Amino acid sequence: MPKDVMRNPSSVWHPYTQMSEWDKFTEIVGGKGMWLIDSEGHRMLDGVASMWCNVWGHSKREIISAIQRQSKKSPHTSLFNLTHPEAESLAKKLVSISPNMSRVFYSDNGSTAMEIAFKIAIQYWQNVNNPARTRFVTLTNGYHGDTFGTMSVGFVPAFFWRFKKNMYKTIQIPFANSYRIPRKTSIEDYYEQTLERIEKSLSRDDVAAFVMESGAQIAGGVNIYRNDFQSKIGRLCRKYNVLFILDEIATGFGRLGSLVEYTAQKSPPDIVAYGKMMTAGYLPMAATLTTERIYKSFLGKYSDMKHLYHGHTYTGNALACAVANQNIMLYKKTNLIAKIKKTSRIMSRRLGEIKKIEIVGDIRYKGMLAGIELVSDQRTKKPLRFTKSVNRVVFEAARKNGVYLRTLGNILVLVPPLAISEKEMNFLIDGTIKTLKSILSERRL
Amino acid sequence: MPKDVMRNPSSVWHPYTQMSEWDKFTEIVGGKGMWLIDSEGHRMLDGVASMWCNVWGHSKREIISAIQRQSKKSPHTSLFNLTHPEAESLAKKLVSISPNMSRVFYSDNGSTAMEIAFKIAIQYWQNVNNPARTRFVTLTNGYHGDTFGTMSVGFVPAFFWRFKKNMYKTIQIPFANSYRIPRKTSIEDYYEQTLERIEKSLSRDDVAAFVMESGAQIAGGVNIYRNDFQSKIGRLCRKYNVLFILDEIATGFGRLGSLVEYTAQKSPPDIVAYGKMMTAGYLPMAATLTTERIYKSFLGKYSDMKHLYHGHTYTGNALACAVANQNIMLYKKTNLIAKIKKTSRIMSRRLGEIKKIEIVGDIRYKGMLAGIELVSDQRTKKPLRFTKSVNRVVFEAARKNGVYLRTLGNILVLVPPLAISEKEMNFLIDGTIKTLKSILSERRL
Repeated sequence: MPKDVMRNPSSVWHPYTQMSEWDKFTEIVGGKGMWLIDSEGHRMLDGVASMWCNVWGHSKREIISAIQRQSKKSPHTSLFNLTHPEAESLAKKLVSISPNMSRVFYSDNGSTAMEIAFKIAIQYWQNVNNPARTRFVTLTNGYHGDTFGTMSVGFVPAFFWRFKKNMYKTIQIPFANSYRIPRKTSIEDYYEQTLERIEKSLSRDDVAAFVMESGAQIAGGVNIYRNDFQSKIGRLCRKYNVLFILDEIATGFGRLGSLVEYTAQKSPPDIVAYGKMMTAGYLPMAATLTTERIYKSFLGKYSDMKHLYHGHTYTGNALACAVANQNIMLYKKTNLIAKIKKTSRIMSRRLGEIKKIEIVGDIRYKGMLAGIELVSDQRTKKPLRFTKSVNRVVFEAARKNGVYLRTLGNILVLVPPLAISEKEMNFLIDGTIKTLKSILSERRL
Repeated sequence: MPKDVMRNPSSVWHPYTQMSEWDKFTEIVGGKGMWLIDSEGHRMLDGVASMWCNVWGHSKREIISAIQRQSKKSPHTSLFNLTHPEAESLAKKLVSISPNMSRVFYSDNGSTAMEIAFKIAIQYWQNVNNPARTRFVTLTNGYHGDTFGTMSVGFVPAFFWRFKKNMYKTIQIPFANSYRIPRKTSIEDYYEQTLERIEKSLSRDDVAAFVMESGAQIAGGVNIYRNDFQSKIGRLCRKYNVLFILDEIATGFGRLGSLVEYTAQKSPPDIVAYGKMMTAGYLPMAATLTTERIYKSFLGKYSDMKHLYHGHTYTGNALACAVANQNIMLYKKTNLIAKIKKTSRIMSRRLGEIKKIEIVGDIRYKGMLAGIELVSDQRTKKPLRFTKSVNRVVFEAARKNGVYLRTLGNILVLVPPLAISEKEMNFLIDGTIKTLKSILSERRL
């Protein structure tokens, strides 16, 4: 078994981590393809795509070449008063793959991309003389980031209840995943009721926008929407003249099987945010796209002060833009989306084997994403619990089987790099099965 | 005169920009030293350090080598459940230059670094069983970023009034810069009154922290604090047992003449944020540092759910960490802080020439920062106004003189790359003088 290999003591405070649980962290010194290599030479298959962002593995020649080329040419220049070729060509590419979209506002992570979406929505209504529209309607268990604006809209209670006093009010429509809907309600009725509640809230005259993750809720429990749900919401937004904001940061760029998920969902938004896989898992960058109608409402004389007061120092960083440009070219050149459809079939086919394991309550999946909900009792659906976090227990067990896994609460999420081979996908599933069985047998002792 | 050279039409929505003012943007294709080169081969001296972040110019061999090396080794792996050598060594370096600090939480830009500071402060008081402390006290005209949490705390009214309904309440102590304090009050009395107001607010039992930019307010008007102001506030925080949060994103790393501004100010904080120049102006990254006391309050059993619910996908990006590591080594190796002290003397010496120009009302400066406030009447102090933004007018005129300048409202800000040579500093000052004189003579026509 590989030893923990972090230098000690460390000064790093890790994200979303009860630091007292980890006396040491595995130190990753490099990556080869889909594999992470630690400082003792052990390998782990990257089963979480390094937090959902890695596309081609960790040593993709073309992406590294793009970094090297751009770093010699122009690593960073500002978009304040200036532009540069990589930001221009990336914006064109993003607009060209995104039906109805016309303008790209760059930022550095998904949280800021969504904060920008919210600011654009609020100000849009002021621009068109309807300033009372400041409120966001959203589904419970949505997630859009960790800053105060995004915590307010994507309020996962277990994550963010501590900060509630400093959040703004939103209208949250109750929405549970198929495994957790009320016992006596059919899934069809549940979706109908949800849509009715949404429609009622959209008729209010203080609503700025409806906000949702495109295709599936992720952090709030891996909840894949049923057919037409998203497109019906989009239509309701148009009916009530409310903006429709989609968050494709985790779900777009092929994760659910489509390059742009809202195209597959037939639900064109007014504003959409991209991130994570846009830079192939190599550099921080996100983007907020809007329609021409919204963009135009911000135009005017300078003295009208109608422009958007937003901008980060590294907005449109040239190195990250160059990587994203290369990445999107590779999607096309390798026909990655077609490959994903093939590889994801292996995953869906083999999930049945996982489903049989006693501590697995439910599996929800689409494209290259699977959420495996762990329970202590399949009948009562009681979540699996340890004195440690489920994440810590699963990570440790998985590591012994050569895979890097992470959970969201009691949901083990399989979210491999998109270009993973069929053989490696099978290794990931095998490793997951071994991991869950070892946890099960330890519980039995 | 150089032509505007942007490809048209563009899909980029520029930050803080009334897009209708700019039919075209100058396209920067590369940089050499302190100079930006546009697509027609014209050069501009980077007088704003590409939004305050560039340290060594745009083609620093050692920084580019660090990017190239790390991109081959390991461009990005996650800090979720894992660590990597570059994040570890950078955290150690940051802690070693920051007296009293013990832990580093990484993020991607200044806004998120401050959001993290606020979340840590709010939760700290819950961790120590004082959950009523959720409010932030701050000075008016402070600026900490563009997300909802940072807009709430650093509320520059002209920037953010539109979003007020979606912000949380803070306690804002009136604070104007020396040029704009009430006419009949002496500057000494004004500071005394401000400190009294601060003390009164800190005695409230719902205050979580006092938050301020370290050394000077920037975006809110380039307001350099007088001696002891910041250290007196720090002492008041300790007296009333309130956390003291400093924002060194724009002011640290040498901008005001010290590597760590709070050391010069003799005002150790509980939480401090770094950004911008930390990565030498090459890659997005920021960091939030805390004391051991604060960090420890987040430790406990997992089931206590006391860990910090925050983390961005690219948190601790290895490429950015490698750049920051190289950057900090270069600060030491080249003794940059000593060099800054020398070069900044040229700036301060020559500002007198600028002061004489009719449209200059006031100049406030420290280290490698100068704010030149433009007025239409030196007696009434009425801000300079055009039909276009002052920024657009200044940028256009400066470009003809071979310098890249930008204003904050009616304040022209000189904020060159820190390693600028004396000769280039003189070129920048000469260009600024020519620019202001040409604006003045056009107004006279």
